[in-house]
Amino acid sequence: MAAALRRLSRCGVAGFLPQVFSANRHGPRMLPHLVCQKISTSSKIKVDLDQSTGVAVMWMQSPPVNSLTMELLTEFTTTLENLEMDKSCRGVIITSSLPRIFSAGLDILEMYQTSPEHCGEFWKAVQELWLKLYGSNLATIAAINGSSPAGGCLVSIACDYRIMADDPRYSIGLNETLLGIVAPYWFKDTMANTVGHRTTELALGLGLLYSAPEALKIGLVDKLVPEDQVVNTATLTMAKWLAIDEHARQVTKSMMRKPTVDKLLSNREADVHNFVSFITKDSVQKSLGMYLKMLKNRKA
Amino acid sequence: MAAALRRLSRCGVAGFLPQVFSANRHGPRMLPHLVCQKISTSSKIKVDLDQSTGVAVMWMQSPPVNSLTMELLTEFTTTLENLEMDKSCRGVIITSSLPRIFSAGLDILEMYQTSPEHCGEFWKAVQELWLKLYGSNLATIAAINGSSPAGGCLVSIACDYRIMADDPRYSIGLNETLLGIVAPYWFKDTMANTVGHRTTELALGLGLLYSAPEALKIGLVDKLVPEDQVVNTATLTMAKWLAIDEHARQVTKSMMRKPTVDKLLSNREADVHNFVSFITKDSVQKSLGMYLKMLKNRKA
Amino acid sequence: MAAALRRLSRCGVAGFLPQVFSANRHGPRMLPHLVCQKISTSSKIKVDLDQSTGVAVMWMQSPPVNSLTMELLTEFTTTLENLEMDKSCRGVIITSSLPRIFSAGLDILEMYQTSPEHCGEFWKAVQELWLKLYGSNLATIAAINGSSPAGGCLVSIACDYRIMADDPRYSIGLNETLLGIVAPYWFKDTMANTVGHRTTELALGLGLLYSAPEALKIGLVDKLVPEDQVVNTATLTMAKWLAIDEHARQVTKSMMRKPTVDKLLSNREADVHNFVSFITKDSVQKSLGMYLKMLKNRKA
Repeated sequence: MAAALRRLSRCGVAGFLPQVFSANRHGPRMLPHLVCQKISTSSKIKVDLDQSTGVAVMWMQSPPVNSLTMELLTEFTTTLENLEMDKSCRGVIITSSLPRIFSAGLDILEMYQTSPEHCGEFWKAVQELWLKLYGSNLATIAAINGSSPAGGCLVSIACDYRIMADDPRYSIGLNETLLGIVAPYWFKDTMANTVGHRTTELALGLGLLYSAPEALKIGLVDKLVPEDQVVNTATLTMAKWLAIDEHARQVTKSMMRKPTVDKLLSNREADVHNFVSFITKDSVQKSLGMYLKMLKNRKA
Repeated sequence: MAAALRRLSRCGVAGFLPQVFSANRHGPRMLPHLVCQKISTSSKIKVDLDQSTGVAVMWMQSPPVNSLTMELLTEFTTTLENLEMDKSCRGVIITSSLPRIFSAGLDILEMYQTSPEHCGEFWKAVQELWLKLYGSNLATIAAINGSSPAGGCLVSIACDYRIMADDPRYSIGLNETLLGIVAPYWFKDTMANTVGHRTTELALGLGLLYSAPEALKIGLVDKLVPEDQVVNTATLTMAKWLAIDEHARQVTKSMMRKPTVDKLLSNREADVHNFVSFITKDSVQKSLGMYLKMLKNRKA
Repeated sequence: MAAALRRLSRCGVAGFLPQVFSANRHGPRMLPHLVCQKISTSSKIKVDLDQSTGVAVMWMQSPPVNSLTMELLTEFTTTLENLEMDKSCRGVIITSSLPRIFSAGLDILEMYQTSPEHCGEFWKAVQELWLKLYGSNLATIAAINGSSPAGGCLVSIACDYRIMADDPRYSIGLNETLLGIVAPYWFKDTMANTVGHRTTELALGLGLLYSAPEALKIGLVDKLVPEDQVVNTATLTMAKWLAIDEHARQVTKSMMRKPTVDKLLSNREADVHNFVSFITKDSVQKSLGMYLKMLKNRKA
């Protein structure tokens, strides 16, 4: 069954947002026009770096829904590290090249019926992405051009700024409890740093997904624009961040975020251990299995 | 005098909200219709547990204003512990069976002209209630069908969710400074976890009581409904909480609240000591005496 | 150059808010009428203490823009300490006697082309003012009758309450990054205690200055009133704070603020060291120099 589901998942599951899989209700989506000096393309992430502005765009392009598999996580982190070391790059915009989805979050099949060792390696990769992104010296903007549940939300709130497509059919949130799993404390900290303790408590407790307008209202995203202007608006907004003195901006960002980053850094092994113990429980595996079956049925 | 005041208080003082004592302005209040499999009734709290849904309702019924006396505090905590151990119970709604008042808060007479020993025991009982309620594994909803000052507010904000009667004559807040006393740090932490640091600073510093609509606006309560629908709405809302996977919900709640709970747990003796030193000061006793005299005059 | 700039600055620069220097767009400003029992006047700060109410008004009067020079900082702190020890004083209102400006913040010339020793002494004076004001036992209200960037914002948010002139031309914020410098963690903590983590992150990262209406919206100030009513409204508001039991108010305030104060107290030397290392960097000195030149050009 796992293998069948795996194929299913990689073909469009990854869960969290069934409406993503329904027929194309939006019609063709126009991608914003891009003028770039250098284009480095890899399998799962396409990078456009405009060396005249110092702004890179990372396009997640892992169909059908940019599930954060081990492969995508690793490539994401590596790409970010390379941009971080590239002197010509000062800011990065993270977005999706797929229609209607930013990222569907962590790939459930990486943690369903896999070995504890694999779960541990997978979790380290999740930690690594967050540590690099939340603590990045680059200015970072999420151009959220589709739904962004769970891990997709984590990627978004780890950026400096969030611009989302103004469409109530798109939603964002840390909805882990809906799957019978738990957002760890550093997901929680990142969320609380964004929308405060109480909204986080309510959102995580009930596994709430917020529509784009609701997300704006609670401060989970910073701005809504029409879908075809998300990336362009991110580019314009990035110019404001890059107008700030580089050193002052980085020191300020580090002051705001270092305590949250350090909490995980001093505790990574225990966090991996907690995750593996939790996710490999029979009851949790059963919840994940039921969730995958539900998605399969819905799809059929 | 203390004895006379004691009788007065138990007949309707407990302070904080003089308008509570004025003539019945609301007319008869219809209690929502209840269908319950099991009803356990005790002197100060009536419990209705619907075993088909797993939802218990705790009705505080200590006339005239549900003052949190040692007796009510103890019964509250014991009732909650019993529900917590009852496998058929998964959520609890806390409400009042008295008209126009949820709870008037800590009974002043437990701390006015009583021995330091008594004050200390009383405070331990307050701590115990909060520790059990704020850290409860049950889903908890406050159905605030009347005013809820001071300790009444603490009970409310220790729940997972707050539904209040939509009546501007009802108010809620930690108004301790109005009596010349001080909300301790764990009251403050619970409030700050609900409405943030700044609103808490302002509210505690000025002893602010918020009307129901104001309370909604600052996030001190989550929803307003007509008075006769408060408990029913709580029941409907509870269904959403209980739809979440039990284990995931509990682990998530613990992650949000454990640091705040642990702060008191590691510091209970010192907190009792601080309270007793403060409350037994001549100046503080004098403030409480003046407050009680004011209430007596207002009543007469 | 430094000397020339010094003269320039003391004649109206101090930076941060170029529009302050443009011609008088507001016409004559009426100062509120004052009735005071005792008036102690010093060079940079005029103090009116009304002994019948216990309320002192501290008028910053250091033309052109109340730059926080070493001299003004020291006098501010000393004045506050004297009021704190004066039994007849229970509350203090901080305001400006200059048109259109509350305070332009730290005087850049105290940290531009001066010795590390001087920078260190200057920074200790900034710490001292904040420690005394944020931790004051007095009730404190900022009557912000003009723009209030950087250090002016710090003084404002260190008070218990903020009333600002309702004029969109006036702005307030911690805009340090605009000058290539960084607000230290205790500026950040004070801001986050006022408007929360996320708004602080955004504000500090982009060096945002909020117009009075925007500042009200995010909670950076508590109330807007017409400019000629700022001080009078502060006086009326102060009466509410002083109606609260003195001891209860002070203990509550200390509970809210002591953790933030203690963080700096246990770390003062390191904080001075960090500031001096940062501010004396060539790149930072260059940024300050460019900023001063820009102001000079704009003035000319």
